[in-house]
Amino acid sequence: MSETANRISPTQDTPNIVISVDAMGGDKGCGAVVSGMAKAAQTYPNIKFIVHGDQAQLAPLLAKRKNLSGKYEVRHAADVITMDDKPSHAMRNGKNSSMWGTVEAVKAKDADAAVSCGNTGALMAISMLRLRKLPGVYRPAIAILWPSRNASGFNVMLDVGADIRADAPDLLKYALMGASYARNGFGLKRPRVGLLNVGTEEHKGRPELKEAHELISETFDGGDYEYVGFVEGNDIPSDTVDVIVTDGFTGNIALKTGEGTANMIGTAMRESFKATLLSRLGALFAIVPLKRFSRRIDPRRKNGGVFLGLNGTVVKSHGGADATGIAAAITLAYDLAAENFSEKLAVRVASAGLGGDSEPHVTKS
Amino acid sequence: MSETANRISPTQDTPNIVISVDAMGGDKGCGAVVSGMAKAAQTYPNIKFIVHGDQAQLAPLLAKRKNLSGKYEVRHAADVITMDDKPSHAMRNGKNSSMWGTVEAVKAKDADAAVSCGNTGALMAISMLRLRKLPGVYRPAIAILWPSRNASGFNVMLDVGADIRADAPDLLKYALMGASYARNGFGLKRPRVGLLNVGTEEHKGRPELKEAHELISETFDGGDYEYVGFVEGNDIPSDTVDVIVTDGFTGNIALKTGEGTANMIGTAMRESFKATLLSRLGALFAIVPLKRFSRRIDPRRKNGGVFLGLNGTVVKSHGGADATGIAAAITLAYDLAAENFSEKLAVRVASAGLGGDSEPHVTKS
Repeated sequence: MSETANRISPTQDTPNIVISVDAMGGDKGCGAVVSGMAKAAQTYPNIKFIVHGDQAQLAPLLAKRKNLSGKYEVRHAADVITMDDKPSHAMRNGKNSSMWGTVEAVKAKDADAAVSCGNTGALMAISMLRLRKLPGVYRPAIAILWPSRNASGFNVMLDVGADIRADAPDLLKYALMGASYARNGFGLKRPRVGLLNVGTEEHKGRPELKEAHELISETFDGGDYEYVGFVEGNDIPSDTVDVIVTDGFTGNIALKTGEGTANMIGTAMRESFKATLLSRLGALFAIVPLKRFSRRIDPRRKNGGVFLGLNGTVVKSHGGADATGIAAAITLAYDLAAENFSEKLAVRVASAGLGGDSEPHVTKS
Repeated sequence: MSETANRISPTQDTPNIVISVDAMGGDKGCGAVVSGMAKAAQTYPNIKFIVHGDQAQLAPLLAKRKNLSGKYEVRHAADVITMDDKPSHAMRNGKNSSMWGTVEAVKAKDADAAVSCGNTGALMAISMLRLRKLPGVYRPAIAILWPSRNASGFNVMLDVGADIRADAPDLLKYALMGASYARNGFGLKRPRVGLLNVGTEEHKGRPELKEAHELISETFDGGDYEYVGFVEGNDIPSDTVDVIVTDGFTGNIALKTGEGTANMIGTAMRESFKATLLSRLGALFAIVPLKRFSRRIDPRRKNGGVFLGLNGTVVKSHGGADATGIAAAITLAYDLAAENFSEKLAVRVASAGLGGDSEPHVTKS
């Protein structure tokens, strides 16, 4: 909880949770963001917002939402970081952008967590610059929830695109951070952690993966997670593992391949049901199971990549998210803030005894 | 066509195509392989087989299949290479295995193409040892057909696991070989070739990908394929590209992630239709569109990774393939042999003027 939450007139007895929201930079515009905020406020009455963006556009959109009344503060930002801006450009020239303001509010402890639909690379660069990395973390990671056959319905996968490479010590830290996320997010006592590879045999795969396998095996203290060794692509949506650790290049390819496959299958199914008059009739009779199925694989239901390894919580929403997707990203940020996840993660990484510096290629155990 | 096809009593006027089949080493045993052969022979009356494996097990299984009568020859092999054998072990100790015999029959020109369900790494190692790489190819690749929104219903992706790394010159050769496969397989005049990356902007991705991007752009002569630049994971099942080029590590992860996602969605759909009595009734009415849908995404319909870059055609079937899957791999091998694909590919790679040696890290244009 932020000590400055009182600034935006709390009305509940429960402590407020303040979410800093970047209203600009998403594909669907700030209207979708404001709709998402209103949806999230229905779920969590004690949520408050600091909204960053163009005051002139935002004020009328926010005023229309009765259930947001008294629950937000607008911080005007003149600039918007676009999807085409390079991260280095955003770091040098982004000080007046809505994205910068969104992260800055977490840095200043005005807000408990940040949410943005904008450019991923720019958001990570600004987050690293302003929030700084946790001691012992050289490469922060982006963790997402992947629909799976597990009881929770999801697995955690990281990194899905913070950095295109990861060395063995980075992969070890991803294992620790991912396990911490799964413990807090799913209430699992000992999440099962696997390292993504092209085979499950120890002689297979890239050299840094073999090194990481040894490092994680050695570091693993039998305590609060279980290391299951190498896993393969088909294990990602399975119930054999809770946390999948990989580098950001491979993770991003896997994530987008999964999304593309699910989209193609969804299209093929709709086409099958539209093919003839008889099959349209069939669809009418099958409407309940088809809706149940669509809900289960709906990617908007869980939306949000969490930046792990920073002093503060930042959630990256899908750029193309609609109100439902944005509400999911905001409630994810709320849940993490309510659980003090950022502080717990910092303690976990520090207590792993992996050293207080953040140099690359240095293996400490 | 092999000049030795006459050895197994041709009965048709059309030239025979001889497929060398490894009957051992698949997860479902040699019964499934013989069933797959019988299915394929229904499609192609002028197919002939040289079958490698345990004579005592194979003879009665083959004798039961009336439509295979007079269309096969069994070559006894005492040994079987298992899924756990290392490729290096298979190369040193595999001379009496069914897999070795299967490849050897292509080398000896007794057969026009080879099919095996066995250990991928061992099959590639034995194929490289016996068939040798094409001049100019340092790393052969495994190409698969991926269900997509294209008119053909498929894209070509390579490499999906021949080698865990690929440098820029390898990726260029994958582009040429993949385009050749798409031209022959789908009848496309100018297949669109894309390079798999984590973003479509030129400044993104790994250094070897930037180098490959420049190399393919420079080499591209505007002739028989179109280079569309970088593509992302979600483009793999799309209709924006025909050939997706990547290294074998990334390709294997993407392939298995796609398979795992499709399986999970299939399970979720079956569960949705079984959830209540009413939804079971719905399934009855929706049986035609559901079957149409299942057929469209059935992975057994196109089964087979083709080894590209060798002097000869080798098709790797999925290890867990059943009779339908094995028949698909055999008909794929038949189609490639009937088109003289191996010879066409050799000519294409040679005519690209990429040099006659096969050294790594040497860029020639």
